Amino acid sequence: MVPMDLFSIPNGSVTSPAGFRAGATFAGLKTRGEGKLDLTILLSETPCAGAGVFTQNRIAAAPVHLCREHLRRARPRAVVVNSGSANACIGDQGMTDAREMARLVADKLGLQPEEVLVCSTGIIGVELPMGIIRAGIQAVRLTEDGGHGFAQAIVTTDTHPKEVGVSLNLAGRTVRVAGAAKGAGMIHPNMATLLGFVTTDAAVEADFLQTVLKEAVETSFNMVTVDGDTSTNDTVLLLANGAAGNPPIGGGPDGEALQAAVTEVCVQLAKMIAADGEGATKLLEVRVEGAASLADARKAARTIAGSNLLKAAVYGNDPNWGRAIAALGRSGARVVEKRVSLYINDICVLDGGKPIPFFKGAAIATMQQATVRFLVRLNAGPHAATAWGCDLTERYVAINSAYTT
Amino acid sequence: MVPMDLFSIPNGSVTSPAGFRAGATFAGLKTRGEGKLDLTILLSETPCAGAGVFTQNRIAAAPVHLCREHLRRARPRAVVVNSGSANACIGDQGMTDAREMARLVADKLGLQPEEVLVCSTGIIGVELPMGIIRAGIQAVRLTEDGGHGFAQAIVTTDTHPKEVGVSLNLAGRTVRVAGAAKGAGMIHPNMATLLGFVTTDAAVEADFLQTVLKEAVETSFNMVTVDGDTSTNDTVLLLANGAAGNPPIGGGPDGEALQAAVTEVCVQLAKMIAADGEGATKLLEVRVEGAASLADARKAARTIAGSNLLKAAVYGNDPNWGRAIAALGRSGARVVEKRVSLYINDICVLDGGKPIPFFKGAAIATMQQATVRFLVRLNAGPHAATAWGCDLTERYVAINSAYTT
Repeated sequence: MVPMDLFSIPNGSVTSPAGFRAGATFAGLKTRGEGKLDLTILLSETPCAGAGVFTQNRIAAAPVHLCREHLRRARPRAVVVNSGSANACIGDQGMTDAREMARLVADKLGLQPEEVLVCSTGIIGVELPMGIIRAGIQAVRLTEDGGHGFAQAIVTTDTHPKEVGVSLNLAGRTVRVAGAAKGAGMIHPNMATLLGFVTTDAAVEADFLQTVLKEAVETSFNMVTVDGDTSTNDTVLLLANGAAGNPPIGGGPDGEALQAAVTEVCVQLAKMIAADGEGATKLLEVRVEGAASLADARKAARTIAGSNLLKAAVYGNDPNWGRAIAALGRSGARVVEKRVSLYINDICVLDGGKPIPFFKGAAIATMQQATVRFLVRLNAGPHAATAWGCDLTERYVAINSAYTT
Repeated sequence: MVPMDLFSIPNGSVTSPAGFRAGATFAGLKTRGEGKLDLTILLSETPCAGAGVFTQNRIAAAPVHLCREHLRRARPRAVVVNSGSANACIGDQGMTDAREMARLVADKLGLQPEEVLVCSTGIIGVELPMGIIRAGIQAVRLTEDGGHGFAQAIVTTDTHPKEVGVSLNLAGRTVRVAGAAKGAGMIHPNMATLLGFVTTDAAVEADFLQTVLKEAVETSFNMVTVDGDTSTNDTVLLLANGAAGNPPIGGGPDGEALQAAVTEVCVQLAKMIAADGEGATKLLEVRVEGAASLADARKAARTIAGSNLLKAAVYGNDPNWGRAIAALGRSGARVVEKRVSLYINDICVLDGGKPIPFFKGAAIATMQQATVRFLVRLNAGPHAATAWGCDLTERYVAINSAYTT
């Protein structure tokens, strides 16, 4: 999946790029007991160009507001993340606590509070237990290989941490881009947050960095759907500290190369999130080609990948293409029925709007794989997009209907 | 629930209004075997004012196109409905078969084909078995109490037929309004169609009738969500034959009274559909008050009622209000967090954006009832709306992941 000019970093983490350190601890926020990390700090040795993309939910958690404010005011040096409690929907106390987290980390590391970004994920509507957070921040020890601990500490109910790194050559320098993310799987109620953190040692102009992150998120995290519920805390941050020593990138061919690397990291993380969706047994990949606009392609792919009915059919290995077509039709994308073709794992089931009498046994057999692919050709234009989701299983319901206590 | 000036018709059906007859047969379309009705005809003794509201899905089934065309061309006399096959996504043959169904019914009853409306519901992407449909249409016998058979024949996987009737006095005449509907529960793949049929013996001007139906559908069927999947076949028809002998209604106080009656019939049917959603054990009622616009109120109520996470929590009797607030925030409705209050079955859990330390045991106990109500007060304006849904259960997944054959 990695293009020719990108190289995978074995065992990559957010501290793979030069000049980043991280550390994590178990502060006591996660109810699943000791041994699980739940509080983590990421530090750059030097001030970074910073970029952020945040939830579109009108009810955003306090740390989201704080990140926006701090990115406007300063070049970031550090990120602190807690899992277990979302610091959302608790009134003015939320902002007070988020600010205190930034101040505590700044004091610990000799920074200004506005150089610290804060993220929280966990239960909505309960106050952060600041006593154990204060102690936890003191306990964190930062190391050059602390990235794996960072990835472990940010997860909530993900079944495994999600991290990836790539390297590329820019103007004779080796540049690294790496990321960690947590997914939208939830066991405790209200944990639905998507958090993503991307680090790079490339030198990048801040305005351009924001463009790069936005573009990468559009084709990766924004194309993931687990259950259609957008969290109050969704945050993706990108920090570029320039330790690679390249001339600062503001566009051009180097900008395109960096864009490709950041997009690749985000897409790989996004696919891991989809495949690890709550209760999921399979990755669902929906590609829409031939759309009249990019927006149409994205809407169509996302809507199909998010259909409860289709997701249940994927779980049951049922090549039930009518559900994909019904979802396509309600997606809002421009569709001419007579031009639509549909493939399930390369088997054509609909061609030019007419059903093909396909061999169902073969389709069922291919659907038993770990990844199920739907390809829709609209034959209405040049645009394409891919969305990722997962199947809908009884376990999703069981997990989300179980009362917490 | 019925307002003071509306009277419930005991055992009401679409043939309760004067001048309507209906009949149904088992043609052999449903795979569940004989004894189940699957083909039905509704006839008015005289031409009707007709109104229709149809799916917004860009891929609409052939009978939807035909209904639109026939409503433009003639005053309807009859409706023919088959269940078992949706006549959707099969190319040009779909329109050919829909037209033949109209012609066969017209020939049988001495009508013009354009006086016949056609609806289908069932599997997408298979051709109608016209041989058994032709025989079935011949076999149908119309009677004055055939309404219950009509309601039975239109269902697919609903666990029971859905019908209701009300009467009211208009200008000294007794006027009846009655309806039947089938829901969005699905056992066979691709059956997701909502069909609604409302009859009245009131005399109504056709243009006004369309306004009445549109308004009623907005506050009833359009506020129901079972799984977010909009069908290719969704259709609601309203026929007014004037047999009550009232002066034709074109607005004014009589128009308002008729509107109330039609809305009441549609709301009752909508609630039955929600409560009978696939695998559902409970009705979920979400009311949003104090919205800045009616559109905001409707968006917010629908989004909350449609949240997979909230629906799973309702199933598990979990007073997990953060999920409702997260859904509210992503609904697109204007929300000021500090003004939002939330009640679960009259228990206040959030007031002015701050969590209330409510007694969870009591909330859990109230959630074990057949109807679970969420009330959101936005305190941002005068508009309100109610949406209906159901809980999300393991059975929904089991039903929809089981392969058909």
